[in-house]
Amino acid sequence: MQRILNDPDRVVDEMLNGFVACHSDIIKRVITSEENVRGIIAAVDAPRKGKVGVVTGGGSGHKPAFIGYVGKNLCDAAAVGEICSSPTALAFLEAFRAADGGGGVACLYGNYSGDNMNVKMAVKMAKREGIAVKTVVANDDVASAPADQREKRRGVAGEILMWKCGGAKAAQGYGLDEVVAAAQKAIDHTRSVGVGLTPCTLPAVGHPNFQIADGTMELGIGHHGEPGIEVCKLGTAKEIAERMVDIVLPDYPFTAGDDVVVLVSGLGATPLMEQYIFYDEVRKLLGEKQIHIHRSYVGNYFTSLDMMGITLTVMKLDEELRELVDMDCYSMGLKQVGE
Amino acid sequence: MQRILNDPDRVVDEMLNGFVACHSDIIKRVITSEENVRGIIAAVDAPRKGKVGVVTGGGSGHKPAFIGYVGKNLCDAAAVGEICSSPTALAFLEAFRAADGGGGVACLYGNYSGDNMNVKMAVKMAKREGIAVKTVVANDDVASAPADQREKRRGVAGEILMWKCGGAKAAQGYGLDEVVAAAQKAIDHTRSVGVGLTPCTLPAVGHPNFQIADGTMELGIGHHGEPGIEVCKLGTAKEIAERMVDIVLPDYPFTAGDDVVVLVSGLGATPLMEQYIFYDEVRKLLGEKQIHIHRSYVGNYFTSLDMMGITLTVMKLDEELRELVDMDCYSMGLKQVGE
Repeated sequence: MQRILNDPDRVVDEMLNGFVACHSDIIKRVITSEENVRGIIAAVDAPRKGKVGVVTGGGSGHKPAFIGYVGKNLCDAAAVGEICSSPTALAFLEAFRAADGGGGVACLYGNYSGDNMNVKMAVKMAKREGIAVKTVVANDDVASAPADQREKRRGVAGEILMWKCGGAKAAQGYGLDEVVAAAQKAIDHTRSVGVGLTPCTLPAVGHPNFQIADGTMELGIGHHGEPGIEVCKLGTAKEIAERMVDIVLPDYPFTAGDDVVVLVSGLGATPLMEQYIFYDEVRKLLGEKQIHIHRSYVGNYFTSLDMMGITLTVMKLDEELRELVDMDCYSMGLKQVGE
Repeated sequence: MQRILNDPDRVVDEMLNGFVACHSDIIKRVITSEENVRGIIAAVDAPRKGKVGVVTGGGSGHKPAFIGYVGKNLCDAAAVGEICSSPTALAFLEAFRAADGGGGVACLYGNYSGDNMNVKMAVKMAKREGIAVKTVVANDDVASAPADQREKRRGVAGEILMWKCGGAKAAQGYGLDEVVAAAQKAIDHTRSVGVGLTPCTLPAVGHPNFQIADGTMELGIGHHGEPGIEVCKLGTAKEIAERMVDIVLPDYPFTAGDDVVVLVSGLGATPLMEQYIFYDEVRKLLGEKQIHIHRSYVGNYFTSLDMMGITLTVMKLDEELRELVDMDCYSMGLKQVGE
């Protein structure tokens, strides 16, 4: 395993130490590692009195997700899990406490069984303390279940747009119901799909726990190597873009005249150059269909350790979402200012 | 080759198309690909009348470098070369034209023979057109030549701090001599070293053009796979940090009481998590030596396609450099606002 690590069992703690030291202008660590809580990252100014707190959380190994989206006009706190493991219920509860300024908490997270269970428990515990928590569960990954079973779909990079819109709505001073409605609308308007070209290696395991044969790619792969819908011949950037656009667009469906956000994320080991080549193909395909790109993001926004691969996310805008997406924000993973 | 590409010979053009489409709020393409010029990227508002133009350029495959550092309070234009190849003299000349607002041009680039030759020719051609160009040649890579032959050293990730300081000085309205002096001071105060864990693959070649055996690492490797100073056993993050800090600190030398900027960059395929683990070790080592970190950057700032590895850059601050480093800036590769 050609990797830069110390103790494979302490990667999350060590990563958090470096992260907190590097970004002390944006975030703070409110709970250091202790029994059942790996760590809670909160915005420097959290909780803000009266403001709805926006919380997320998830397993580690997807950086910038999740802690990279804690900051100004984004999430107020994030619960940190072990590599590819949900944060505990207690961790989510601590994140709620860190974010709650009296206006309640919007917990915006991804559809994974561990997260669902732990968030549910944490919401109950928070209620006993008088913290009102409402949840939005991201399910933007088209490949993870059929359209008539959307409730089974995983949350992937579309979560970033959910945090962006929910965080902006909360920053505008809206109440909990409005913030949750905006975040729900954001994810309902969003579809994603991923493709894997190589597997990733969990530090504690030391070798890939699945394989992708040279010359092939896995279409619809999940962020933890969950099986995709098809293993096929590795295509050109254009062919890969065509396959992914053909999965994403009909599902919503996105159609001529739509105004959209496009988010392309590398999965960790994909050179930025290739992400832009891929984006250019997506852009041309959407242009042919008269779908207008209002804003686009290209980079390592939601990764899977050292996996080679890419994800495509498209969100349809309406007036409200356009305003929320365009709002300034400042975090490690997303900085958008004064345009 | 598990990569997302179309025609391996057209990667730079295709990448530029995607880049320009994605970042039209920050940059524009002033020359599209034509004979001898691959492309010129300039800030949306370049040239700015009276302001010193800041120009850089270099081979492709290092994204965000070089075009990712064109933007507000950074570079005004960048000349784009083929993968790992210098831009032509004509390309540098076009970049000078794109950046010159009548105040002259500071060309801040890295010490590679192709770049040196082509910049020199371009400066002569520019002079004939009445554009005054002065140059600063980055040579921060400690491992590339002994201390008494600094003029032979390569420029690596320290170039980012040179652009940051030169760009900020120009944005403050200073003249060409002051801008060049600030950029020169920035790079003179900066030292870097890299380590490679895996080779990278040039798209047009299709396989790595050098090897790093499993279980080993190459200390002092260059951004194009130039041989390092030692191939040794792959260490832990702590051991790697120790080796690199021991190379960087004595060379300047950085000593107790110094105020520094630390920049850690992944080389393309290194997960962000590991970059923060590495940074945490560097931070502890500097702390032990009473070297104070004023600001730090961790991420994929200067890469080598899909190479697994990391670079460490340290810059000593004085009052002027601190002010320049702290100034707001906004580009694809570096966004720093209102802290």
